[in-house]
Amino acid sequence: MRAVADVSPLAPGSTIGILGGGQLGRMLSQAASRLGFDVVILDPEENSPAGRVSRGQIVAAYDDPTALTVFGRVCDVVTFEFENVPASSVERLAEAGALVAPGPTALAVAQDRVDEKTFLNAVGAPTVGFVAVDGLNDLTAGLEALGLPALLKTRRDGYDGKGQVWIKSAKQAGAALASLGGRPAILEAKAPFIRELSIIAARGRDGSVAVYPLGENRHAGGVLRTTQAPAVIDAKTERRAKAIAAAVLDGLAYVGVIGIELFDLGDGRLLVNEIAPRVHNTGHWTQDGCVCDQFEQHIRAIAGWPLGPTAAHARVEMTNLLGDEVEQWSRVSARPDQRLHLYGKTDARPGRKMGHVNRVRPLG
Amino acid sequence: MRAVADVSPLAPGSTIGILGGGQLGRMLSQAASRLGFDVVILDPEENSPAGRVSRGQIVAAYDDPTALTVFGRVCDVVTFEFENVPASSVERLAEAGALVAPGPTALAVAQDRVDEKTFLNAVGAPTVGFVAVDGLNDLTAGLEALGLPALLKTRRDGYDGKGQVWIKSAKQAGAALASLGGRPAILEAKAPFIRELSIIAARGRDGSVAVYPLGENRHAGGVLRTTQAPAVIDAKTERRAKAIAAAVLDGLAYVGVIGIELFDLGDGRLLVNEIAPRVHNTGHWTQDGCVCDQFEQHIRAIAGWPLGPTAAHARVEMTNLLGDEVEQWSRVSARPDQRLHLYGKTDARPGRKMGHVNRVRPLG
Repeated sequence: MRAVADVSPLAPGSTIGILGGGQLGRMLSQAASRLGFDVVILDPEENSPAGRVSRGQIVAAYDDPTALTVFGRVCDVVTFEFENVPASSVERLAEAGALVAPGPTALAVAQDRVDEKTFLNAVGAPTVGFVAVDGLNDLTAGLEALGLPALLKTRRDGYDGKGQVWIKSAKQAGAALASLGGRPAILEAKAPFIRELSIIAARGRDGSVAVYPLGENRHAGGVLRTTQAPAVIDAKTERRAKAIAAAVLDGLAYVGVIGIELFDLGDGRLLVNEIAPRVHNTGHWTQDGCVCDQFEQHIRAIAGWPLGPTAAHARVEMTNLLGDEVEQWSRVSARPDQRLHLYGKTDARPGRKMGHVNRVRPLG
Repeated sequence: MRAVADVSPLAPGSTIGILGGGQLGRMLSQAASRLGFDVVILDPEENSPAGRVSRGQIVAAYDDPTALTVFGRVCDVVTFEFENVPASSVERLAEAGALVAPGPTALAVAQDRVDEKTFLNAVGAPTVGFVAVDGLNDLTAGLEALGLPALLKTRRDGYDGKGQVWIKSAKQAGAALASLGGRPAILEAKAPFIRELSIIAARGRDGSVAVYPLGENRHAGGVLRTTQAPAVIDAKTERRAKAIAAAVLDGLAYVGVIGIELFDLGDGRLLVNEIAPRVHNTGHWTQDGCVCDQFEQHIRAIAGWPLGPTAAHARVEMTNLLGDEVEQWSRVSARPDQRLHLYGKTDARPGRKMGHVNRVRPLG
């Protein structure tokens, strides 16, 4: 496996592979095309949103060894739109000759909530208290140590609020554990936060770090609804957030864009909720608020190019269009201050991310 | 053939066809994808720049009747990246059920320089003096009427300075005519211009017109090198330019983006040099200077959507990267004020348009 830092910047005309053909893959592909790269997608769904705007798509499972070998040979660099990539898939891509970014360490850390929080604390990024839970004894001890209420989550998988349950009294412990189907779990203390912030940051192959202004997020039903950016925040807290981002990126020897969700405790303290080793829904505002958005930034990083500028030139409120909210396209298209981004998905299932709108206002 | 004005706005998920798979088709395709449309390209060159970022490509000649019928059936709306589309092709697309925008009138007018200038003068848009030239007699009479030097061009085809010759003395008339191979020609008076300006404007299906700030262009060897926008221009001349654009668009009952090249005579007078019924190289600055660039604007217009805003939020100098100038990508990528746009062309033949750079500065 070649070391990512050792190779020259990838020339236009090279091929970038993206594992995952959803909206993040689609917007990454569009950014890569604008810089003159060819893009190939690997996704089990034919005509995926990303595949439809790319040079080609290999239709196969993410752990299909033959498909991964072909994919790794065709692509100069391979990246991901989601973090739950099997470690064996990454190995096979590297064996086939592709650079892989971000690398296996970042993926492994992000795939396991206990490993993730352990890593974060080790690099000085504070989190809520937590304990690993392998059975009822762990859980009972954890509830005593962390207090009530506490949040029980599967260690692996789960997103948008799935695979997690609040425990409000010790009596609920058994049922909560059973609801996770016996999978390894983590118990997290409740964070007394006043709001959720997020940082989108990037690290280049040369170790340089670029951090965007923070966003403030609002969720409903476990799913992101809006991000407002740049978030209103005092300079000291913002510096602390950026220092956390740099510590995380350097700690992982990371290459690419990362999304870091933070709890703002309102007293100057910030806790890291979770990290996503990829472009992130809370960074979509950069498309209309920054010269170089998170998608181009990620492509620049994994291609070994210099990172782009991250200053905001506008204030943006990003709103996800979920399910049949996508029907708002007609109204939104008539608003000169609203920028529409649609993902080319045909089936508007309830809650499915179909697109987003960036409402743009002048800075200041 | 359905009348373009009669149909509802095209919903996301519809298919837009683009005749021509070069860089203009590529950037149109990217804009359409962002609005949730599928795009299919028709181009004789396999893996064309536009085809590589689109849902699909039909590889066939632009006048292949079977291919056009299939293309017209697959696409809800068909548009063009170049003006020299055979009229018979447009007819066949319409017969196959596709809306075609811009329509046959605009294409016909733009394909013949005599018809173009006749139309322009009829709608009150001034041009240089001109005469149609079908033989030496016409040419001799034309040179007497228009004076020397004068510019002899083929009536049809020719771009980037090809198919035209300056006549500096009456003695050169025969040789000049012969150099055009006996094709029907136009003789144009020399315009005493101090600079070339261009307008990018759009007209929606509902007849609304949107005009971008003017650009100032610099050519070398008949090929565009740079556009600076917004051009420095007095308010009265700018109003005149915008009135010309509206007259041209309304006169053609146009739907889509048009590029209009103007000679600025320096005394308040503007002459129209030529019109291009499509997105235009001198409008590439809008990608980094406007919220809604000319590519999205064209897609909005042909899809029957409301036109987007056209105000500039930055000052931009667009420079074409010709031939091996594309090797500058590495240097440009390190400049935070320079935005790189590459077309995915592999063969950097001398003079070939490989990409462009937008250098962005604050307004004012």
